Amino acid sequence: MNPRMFWLFIVIVVVSFATEVQATDPLPSWNDGQTKQSILTFVEKVTTSGSPDFVPVAERIATFDNDGTLWSEQPMYFQLFFALDRVKILAPQHPEWKGKEPFASLLKGDVKATLAGGEKAILEIVMATHAGMTTTEFEKIVKSWIAAASHPKTGRRYTAMVFQPMLELLAFLQANDFKTFIVSGGGIEFMRPWTETVYGIPPEHVVGSSIKTKYEVRNGKPVITRLPELNFIDDKAGKPVGIHQHIGRIPIMAVGNSDGDFEMLDWATSGEGLRFGLLIHHTDDKREWAYDRDSHIGKLDRGLNEGPGRGWTIVSMKDDWKVIFPFEK
Amino acid sequence: MNPRMFWLFIVIVVVSFATEVQATDPLPSWNDGQTKQSILTFVEKVTTSGSPDFVPVAERIATFDNDGTLWSEQPMYFQLFFALDRVKILAPQHPEWKGKEPFASLLKGDVKATLAGGEKAILEIVMATHAGMTTTEFEKIVKSWIAAASHPKTGRRYTAMVFQPMLELLAFLQANDFKTFIVSGGGIEFMRPWTETVYGIPPEHVVGSSIKTKYEVRNGKPVITRLPELNFIDDKAGKPVGIHQHIGRIPIMAVGNSDGDFEMLDWATSGEGLRFGLLIHHTDDKREWAYDRDSHIGKLDRGLNEGPGRGWTIVSMKDDWKVIFPFEK
Repeated sequence: MNPRMFWLFIVIVVVSFATEVQATDPLPSWNDGQTKQSILTFVEKVTTSGSPDFVPVAERIATFDNDGTLWSEQPMYFQLFFALDRVKILAPQHPEWKGKEPFASLLKGDVKATLAGGEKAILEIVMATHAGMTTTEFEKIVKSWIAAASHPKTGRRYTAMVFQPMLELLAFLQANDFKTFIVSGGGIEFMRPWTETVYGIPPEHVVGSSIKTKYEVRNGKPVITRLPELNFIDDKAGKPVGIHQHIGRIPIMAVGNSDGDFEMLDWATSGEGLRFGLLIHHTDDKREWAYDRDSHIGKLDRGLNEGPGRGWTIVSMKDDWKVIFPFEK
Repeated sequence: MNPRMFWLFIVIVVVSFATEVQATDPLPSWNDGQTKQSILTFVEKVTTSGSPDFVPVAERIATFDNDGTLWSEQPMYFQLFFALDRVKILAPQHPEWKGKEPFASLLKGDVKATLAGGEKAILEIVMATHAGMTTTEFEKIVKSWIAAASHPKTGRRYTAMVFQPMLELLAFLQANDFKTFIVSGGGIEFMRPWTETVYGIPPEHVVGSSIKTKYEVRNGKPVITRLPELNFIDDKAGKPVGIHQHIGRIPIMAVGNSDGDFEMLDWATSGEGLRFGLLIHHTDDKREWAYDRDSHIGKLDRGLNEGPGRGWTIVSMKDDWKVIFPFEK
């Protein structure tokens, strides 16, 4: 067989195999029912050439929230565990923290008192722990932490606490030529070091909150340093703005789990043509957590009230998902 | 022939055709010589599996300046012609402009006096002409203008004044699985409506200067409105910052034409592994324009002094390019 014939043979095998795979269930961890069917129907309609709902590949943009949508967010956002661990490491260099909130409570291990200061306290912790180094140094810090830290309740790595059905949904969309983006209130530079490995989402498809940075040349070597100054909060009405800044197109599909995602879903589903809004409702207190209208983290109230009327699909984790985490399989 | 065989046949034809195309010159408008060879060698090295310089597909990021790099920028940035046309259209609603600079000079047709106010004057013109509408409305305004306006010297559409050798370079990189980004001091929303058609660069691969925007719901319909407030200037030391914000990886190749691109090339070529910096030197006063160290638009001084020592390749438009514009072919 000459080389070109060999490669043609390989192409034939791959094409045949791909045809077989497509015939099997792309969402095996989703229970059969309305929710799963609504996803399959949407993807079929927008990808079938000649369908009145067909969407060209370039416009197949899907945006996903991260905390509570792709991985868990209880008992608090995983990035806050990262920040708390950083505070402990940095404390010896900051003797003043012993008499200064929110650091004093935090160093005593009183998380509740720490977070009593609300958003302002969280912001102070983030500024103290996420700034003051180069972007390359910060990337290394995140990578070391995510490889070693474990969740206080499950004892698992945080990246093991991603949702298996969502991994399948991401892969299914990617196989159908969707560009899948993360649009999260979490820090953009906290997510980028691991989203490609965990979700198949490259750094340039991650949109998130950020602090300001500055380019400078140190000893002849250019670096970007992280400044203790807020740049952008990618939450609530900030999500459509973040999508507009980074993507420049309106997504045809948006997936979230809290009222912080309401505006993103509203923006995505208000466009012309067929659109898909999906909200993950945390209803499983045995396998994960159950919370919604009254939760301080991931509050979902308006979405439950108005989502169905807007045609959004609500996932009940308890009823719609066979497994939650990959380690359950 | 059954349907699967039919598609396999199509695949075979496409693969064979692709093999033929690859064997021909990917840069036909570039004269043979050191410059062209340096590009071909770089791309071959980073894309050849097993080569010590091999770069995985995900990391093949190339960033391009726009004004003066992908299209002309004389006698002034094309976006300024757009802004000037907008001022004329909006003037009846702004009687106060008759007594107010830079608008007064502009309405008298005195471009030189208009621009005497420097960056501040330009910013005032941009804020008056680029803000106050929704993002969808602005996109329509740009699309109408770019389809109809013509350059004062050549009489051509502005999108006809792109550089044929650069179109070939973009296509060559894209065929080699590079992600090609625009990183321009120009307005991000001024470029996005036409870069996909003209350069094959989708909106999410465009990085540029921007004004602030705001999400709001008007009569039950969400819109993003453009505010007369500066958000980000993507020029000079802003370029690596813009690259970091949007892409989150250091490019392995960067292409520019002025000292506004110096930091971008420095950032890209300072990374580990094989890197490629390319500067377009405007040396052809017959077919385009000739300018460098003393030009007010597209000044290239430090790049000419320090570029070669940093291993950057300098393109002489006069000597390296067979044709400049597609319409010359």
